[in-house]
Amino acid sequence: MKIAVYRKAHFNAAHRLHNPNWTAEKNKEIFGKCNNDNYHGHNYDLVVKLEGPIDPDTGYVYDMKLLKDLIKEHVSDRFDHKNLNLDTDEFKTLNPTAENIAVVIWNILREKIENKYDLTVRLYETERNFVEFSGD
Amino acid sequence: MKIAVYRKAHFNAAHRLHNPNWTAEKNKEIFGKCNNDNYHGHNYDLVVKLEGPIDPDTGYVYDMKLLKDLIKEHVSDRFDHKNLNLDTDEFKTLNPTAENIAVVIWNILREKIENKYDLTVRLYETERNFVEFSGD
Amino acid sequence: MKIAVYRKAHFNAAHRLHNPNWTAEKNKEIFGKCNNDNYHGHNYDLVVKLEGPIDPDTGYVYDMKLLKDLIKEHVSDRFDHKNLNLDTDEFKTLNPTAENIAVVIWNILREKIENKYDLTVRLYETERNFVEFSGD
Amino acid sequence: MKIAVYRKAHFNAAHRLHNPNWTAEKNKEIFGKCNNDNYHGHNYDLVVKLEGPIDPDTGYVYDMKLLKDLIKEHVSDRFDHKNLNLDTDEFKTLNPTAENIAVVIWNILREKIENKYDLTVRLYETERNFVEFSGD
Amino acid sequence: MKIAVYRKAHFNAAHRLHNPNWTAEKNKEIFGKCNNDNYHGHNYDLVVKLEGPIDPDTGYVYDMKLLKDLIKEHVSDRFDHKNLNLDTDEFKTLNPTAENIAVVIWNILREKIENKYDLTVRLYETERNFVEFSGD
Amino acid sequence: MKIAVYRKAHFNAAHRLHNPNWTAEKNKEIFGKCNNDNYHGHNYDLVVKLEGPIDPDTGYVYDMKLLKDLIKEHVSDRFDHKNLNLDTDEFKTLNPTAENIAVVIWNILREKIENKYDLTVRLYETERNFVEFSGD
Repeated sequence: MKIAVYRKAHFNAAHRLHNPNWTAEKNKEIFGKCNNDNYHGHNYDLVVKLEGPIDPDTGYVYDMKLLKDLIKEHVSDRFDHKNLNLDTDEFKTLNPTAENIAVVIWNILREKIENKYDLTVRLYETERNFVEFSGD
Repeated sequence: MKIAVYRKAHFNAAHRLHNPNWTAEKNKEIFGKCNNDNYHGHNYDLVVKLEGPIDPDTGYVYDMKLLKDLIKEHVSDRFDHKNLNLDTDEFKTLNPTAENIAVVIWNILREKIENKYDLTVRLYETERNFVEFSGD
Repeated sequence: MKIAVYRKAHFNAAHRLHNPNWTAEKNKEIFGKCNNDNYHGHNYDLVVKLEGPIDPDTGYVYDMKLLKDLIKEHVSDRFDHKNLNLDTDEFKTLNPTAENIAVVIWNILREKIENKYDLTVRLYETERNFVEFSGD
Repeated sequence: MKIAVYRKAHFNAAHRLHNPNWTAEKNKEIFGKCNNDNYHGHNYDLVVKLEGPIDPDTGYVYDMKLLKDLIKEHVSDRFDHKNLNLDTDEFKTLNPTAENIAVVIWNILREKIENKYDLTVRLYETERNFVEFSGD
Repeated sequence: MKIAVYRKAHFNAAHRLHNPNWTAEKNKEIFGKCNNDNYHGHNYDLVVKLEGPIDPDTGYVYDMKLLKDLIKEHVSDRFDHKNLNLDTDEFKTLNPTAENIAVVIWNILREKIENKYDLTVRLYETERNFVEFSGD
Repeated sequence: MKIAVYRKAHFNAAHRLHNPNWTAEKNKEIFGKCNNDNYHGHNYDLVVKLEGPIDPDTGYVYDMKLLKDLIKEHVSDRFDHKNLNLDTDEFKTLNPTAENIAVVIWNILREKIENKYDLTVRLYETERNFVEFSGD
């Protein structure tokens, strides 16, 4: 019997969408205002989902305080109030689209959470644009 | 590797639930106040989900500006500030329940979006009543 | 010592903005798609605010169950799942803009609530458009 | 062809996380402030999802008024404004974690809803912590 | 020139409405299910508003990190995961209605924040019931 | 008789809090992570409030389409997907705190909206931090 547990977190960051292999014109054409030279930014909302059995001793799938601390240490503190393109290793060469950020966060958390738990990451760039990645 | 991207939109419309094969009494019994002769209305919130691989050049599954424009042209502009029963072809003979509206929107978008992308439509009639259709 | 208490309610209705003293062209020009002949509709969210002293016996400014019932009986049941233009006395001759609906609701509630309580009505037509009336 | 319909409800309850087989120290270590002797509480938001075919006569998967009433009678009225540990049979011996509450609600509703409808229960303990159970 | 700044916080607590000078019957009649012997609970959302001039050196009315810490130390940590009636000094003899909780929080914060800042406290007991107090 | 009307908009921008008259240490001490050299960003939500009489011909205080277009042209298009410190004239020398951004937006809109309408601007930097300015 499996049940899913979810924990919501958030971080605020600057970013810019840009492909260094393209001309400035092509970048502007494809990424529009998201290509703005001097960056723009978002309040990112993150929802992390773990699926697994309920531990009969605790009644928990996973201790939410542990999950909260894991997300804070490895995701929020790493990306909050940062420029994703300039201040992080992950996005120095990877375009920080919501899709790519979600995959990066999934990979970071996948290493920290035992494989018996299925992991899904949902990332809201705005309340109108969001993505979800389950590692499949 | 697949990732889901979501885009939220909205439209405001009048509608009335009614089965022309039933008596007025049966319509009132089954649909209650949703059968009101002179219509009532809702702010519909729509969330469109596409699933597919990330394009390595853009970092996108699908350009959200294109999806936004597709939804606007083919869904929002078609249904916004309309009476679904009277002003649309789709619901002249189809009861505009949230379920049927979601299926209609799914069919409209399915024709416009390549089949390599899985498509799901979620429609909120109110924040308490909503439906989701994936074409299965 | 005064404190404000708020109660949220909602109703779903159809309406159409229209001035019968104007030509069809002028109505279309001024009200745009809100003038649609066959109506459109909204999920209206209503927030009623009362201000007054705390009753030392109850710790209440006003019993929220009473306020909830008052709003239901005199506002929600009157307007929910109705066509404001056709199904209500109030908007047969009064244009059902958010502003006018708020004033009508304020007047309805003002009669039911003792004058020692200041009354304010906030009405959301959508989450992007809303109005507030305090009787001033 | 299957479509999912969702209905949102809520109830407010007190609870305390506690394993009677453990010492007070271990309970405090594992459950932290959720173990507070005199309970604490939450506004629980519940989303019930049913999946099934659309009835061609009604355009409904399931009558939302029936689902609303089922949830009210068997879930909300049972748990609303209660102390889950003291006032309910279900949690006298079962730790009222969000996970366990969701499973209990799923079991209650599963008995009331025909098996041709797939059933999923999502329970928000706060907007930051929530769980989902589908009976698998 | 004055500008208002707002900071949102939250705490989860159990409580029970009860007037010890009344009979059990009168308590039940007036407070209904909120009088439940074994308590119930809420996720309280708190919005603290300060009004004052903008400091030209910082561009701040008040440092939001300081306000966040003040609220955490003196309000959230005091009430979070507590039974307001049993675990706090303030509500041992004061009925913990939303109104009274807001006044208590206002008084706590008023002592910690210089008088040149106007102070208002808004407290959500649920998203449907909330109160606001400005000390007037 | 006055009534308030509100219109919500949004823009996404990068910014950095910094006082050029201070040392790097003092900037870090006062602004913390908001001082990050390479900027961070937010989804800003803006609520513009106008107060005035209802026009008896339209039932409007102010045409919301006009207000929407005014905000788009003079605020959203100016700040959306920009770096406030680098890409705007207003914040080249003014620290882009939420307070200062709200005052700048108020001044921009005050010039475009007749003085018979009282104007208030509320700006959400996050859902936990927001400010409001009325020109007083």
